[in-house]
Amino acid sequence: MKNDIPYKTYLTEDELPTAWYNLRADMKQKPAPLLNPGTGRALTAEELTPIFCEELVRQELDDETAFFPIPAEIRDFYKMYRPSPLVRAYCLEKILDTPAKIYYKFEGNNTSGSHKLNSAIAQAYYAKAQGLRGVTTETGAGQWGTALSMACAYLGLDCRVFMVKVSFEQKPFRREVMRTYGASVTPSPSTETEVGRRILAEHPGTGGSLGCAISEAVEAAAKNPGYRYVLGSVLNQVLLHQSVIGLEAKAAFDKLGVKPDLIIGCAGGGSNLGGLIAPFMGEKLRGEADYRFLAVEPASCPSFTRGVFAYDFCDTGMICPLAKMYTLGSSFIPSPNHAGGLRFHGMSPVLSQLYHDGLMEARAVKQTEVFEAAELFARCEGILPAPESSHAIRAAIDEANLCRETGEETTILFGLTGTGYFDLTAYQQFNDGRMSDRIPSDEDLAKSIAALPRVPEC
Amino acid sequence: MKNDIPYKTYLTEDELPTAWYNLRADMKQKPAPLLNPGTGRALTAEELTPIFCEELVRQELDDETAFFPIPAEIRDFYKMYRPSPLVRAYCLEKILDTPAKIYYKFEGNNTSGSHKLNSAIAQAYYAKAQGLRGVTTETGAGQWGTALSMACAYLGLDCRVFMVKVSFEQKPFRREVMRTYGASVTPSPSTETEVGRRILAEHPGTGGSLGCAISEAVEAAAKNPGYRYVLGSVLNQVLLHQSVIGLEAKAAFDKLGVKPDLIIGCAGGGSNLGGLIAPFMGEKLRGEADYRFLAVEPASCPSFTRGVFAYDFCDTGMICPLAKMYTLGSSFIPSPNHAGGLRFHGMSPVLSQLYHDGLMEARAVKQTEVFEAAELFARCEGILPAPESSHAIRAAIDEANLCRETGEETTILFGLTGTGYFDLTAYQQFNDGRMSDRIPSDEDLAKSIAALPRVPEC
Repeated sequence: MKNDIPYKTYLTEDELPTAWYNLRADMKQKPAPLLNPGTGRALTAEELTPIFCEELVRQELDDETAFFPIPAEIRDFYKMYRPSPLVRAYCLEKILDTPAKIYYKFEGNNTSGSHKLNSAIAQAYYAKAQGLRGVTTETGAGQWGTALSMACAYLGLDCRVFMVKVSFEQKPFRREVMRTYGASVTPSPSTETEVGRRILAEHPGTGGSLGCAISEAVEAAAKNPGYRYVLGSVLNQVLLHQSVIGLEAKAAFDKLGVKPDLIIGCAGGGSNLGGLIAPFMGEKLRGEADYRFLAVEPASCPSFTRGVFAYDFCDTGMICPLAKMYTLGSSFIPSPNHAGGLRFHGMSPVLSQLYHDGLMEARAVKQTEVFEAAELFARCEGILPAPESSHAIRAAIDEANLCRETGEETTILFGLTGTGYFDLTAYQQFNDGRMSDRIPSDEDLAKSIAALPRVPEC
Repeated sequence: MKNDIPYKTYLTEDELPTAWYNLRADMKQKPAPLLNPGTGRALTAEELTPIFCEELVRQELDDETAFFPIPAEIRDFYKMYRPSPLVRAYCLEKILDTPAKIYYKFEGNNTSGSHKLNSAIAQAYYAKAQGLRGVTTETGAGQWGTALSMACAYLGLDCRVFMVKVSFEQKPFRREVMRTYGASVTPSPSTETEVGRRILAEHPGTGGSLGCAISEAVEAAAKNPGYRYVLGSVLNQVLLHQSVIGLEAKAAFDKLGVKPDLIIGCAGGGSNLGGLIAPFMGEKLRGEADYRFLAVEPASCPSFTRGVFAYDFCDTGMICPLAKMYTLGSSFIPSPNHAGGLRFHGMSPVLSQLYHDGLMEARAVKQTEVFEAAELFARCEGILPAPESSHAIRAAIDEANLCRETGEETTILFGLTGTGYFDLTAYQQFNDGRMSDRIPSDEDLAKSIAALPRVPEC
């Protein structure tokens, strides 16, 4: 087969983005500010700096600056695993017999196995630059914790990871990768923090949740001199760093002379989706081009499609700031049979605002269908995808199948955020026919949503 | 840091090799032919075709043709994960404070996690082209089995893998990847074959060995119509396919205007080493250029450095052809505490001949030192290496440290054959300080070597 478009398009290292793009600068309706849960007032930089690094606070609060230069040291680190390829999915197109042109931006070619490294190195760099000793964080499936431990090992920073207990036990290998990179890994909830002890007392035997691990990591940062807390998703700063995904994708499309029509990303806290769509959404907001954007989330944790747009805590322990976002309530925990990741109860405030303003669509998909898509993709494209990424694959396949019906030659871009090498327990469930779908009932959601904090609307 | 040489050099898809290079064509002293163990005579194509695919037999026996065109379908498959990057290890150089320039050819960016896919797709392709139903094979650590299951899934071939029982039990995730790609995976020795039943009767409770799994896979191919046996290492055909690694590396170096001085590869059966060095060794054999070549093997399975150059069986069940190679004896099994892969008792006849003729050096390294090198590499280069690959890393670091003493600016190339994402049990042993070195005694080796078959020298 002779193709004008190569299978993989790599930018050269000279073509790597030199600045991150801050989508908020082009949003007419800005995302709502973080609130102090005690006062109900917008958080100031002074209130945030005990928890977050100074430069990251500046990035978090800046809704106006469009471009933040990427420091040379971070660019050097990026060069170890970036630019990531923009791949034309010829084999998938052939199997689907679709007129659609399918592309994916593959972020899994690094040991963390995902795009998380893009923000981990940035956050670790600013911690180091501020003269800190180390950082604390939480991790669920382990992608973010692995990424952060890699970044910290590279820079010589201490790294303390609170890992959701059920993942800690089910994923000993993730834990071992983090240990190889020198991180300390504590199952959460733990007895090491006040909030952990409180949660353990209230819910003995709990397997933990992301929201709970966040509470512990924040407390550990606040109480240990020389430490700050870092987070792998949801926050504005994370979307800023992840814009490198979209900037590279756009530059590669421009080189090819191709314009995508539909951009699809999986959505948990929004780090990949926000980064992937950033420059394209910027064009749409500025009226320079039009694209369809589609967020895909698990039916078992459907914050966009069944949540409410309201202020809520980012954590279970309710010690974090309040963010205005699509949320299922901070007490929501997906069914234990959910194996597909993307289990955070809320959603990035930036993406929430865009969705609320009708600039983006969202869709929830069931996990058995997600793993069917993953298997099909693995067999023809040669990459075993992360369950998270496979939500986007599912939607891309469904859209490509629609094109077969309509004959439309839609150009689809989806984010393949990572690989599934540490998710084989989930694949085994699927291979054994033991995987099922469990979707929260209206009553369950009503209960967790009713527990939302009452705060004045800004 | 501004560098003339990029971190990663990718060829374009147009620059991908269009033919494999057959090193044997340039060898004055050809590798000795495979012998029929019954007659002691060189095996003919007719005798090999019941076991191997016809085209692969042709490739196996052809010592004269220098280039074999790569079929378009295989090139298309290669484009899904190739060209692989030639990486300049700037961060490793900096940490080592060495004047050496270190490069590695990274073959781990595909789901099989190693270079094995290069030959798996070729062997599966010829099986398909011959109209076969499927293929059988053995796998130890699982890289080869995974690669073959991926290739077979892509082509719609049945894939039956005999997996060394101890690996089958220790690496359930490797098994699950193969199942996701539709392969059947049987722990070996099994009751499915005569040779498996015989070995089980003689050694009840054995954890199996590669040599034993080979015996079972060969028998399964011979007894099932429409099946042939395929192998991931040792054979001439495998080295031929793997030459794509060296051809790409050489083309990338030529683009950069750089010539390596020292080329280092890990050596188990020789598939990566043979492929990596092929075009460089060809230049040396033709007197066009000179290079140092260094094979690195585990001290616990030291076929080059402590074996003998003699005819031996490739398998434990002694049903395979005899190959003249450096061998520890087909009854040799490395200590159970050996976690670093590369556990085959013999070595590729091509590489054995080159080593015997003084064209290549060899060195054995201890596994604790190998994992120390792996950890250092992971932390500064951002890739968790396979234990196998880490043998080459160890030697590259040792050579770079020597350069620090001597001040020599040696340009080193080593083969980073794959990633260690399925080897975390071994990393855990290392992280816990439970890893030890166990090196075979002279008495043990004398015993397994004394059991070599007696055959007339050709």
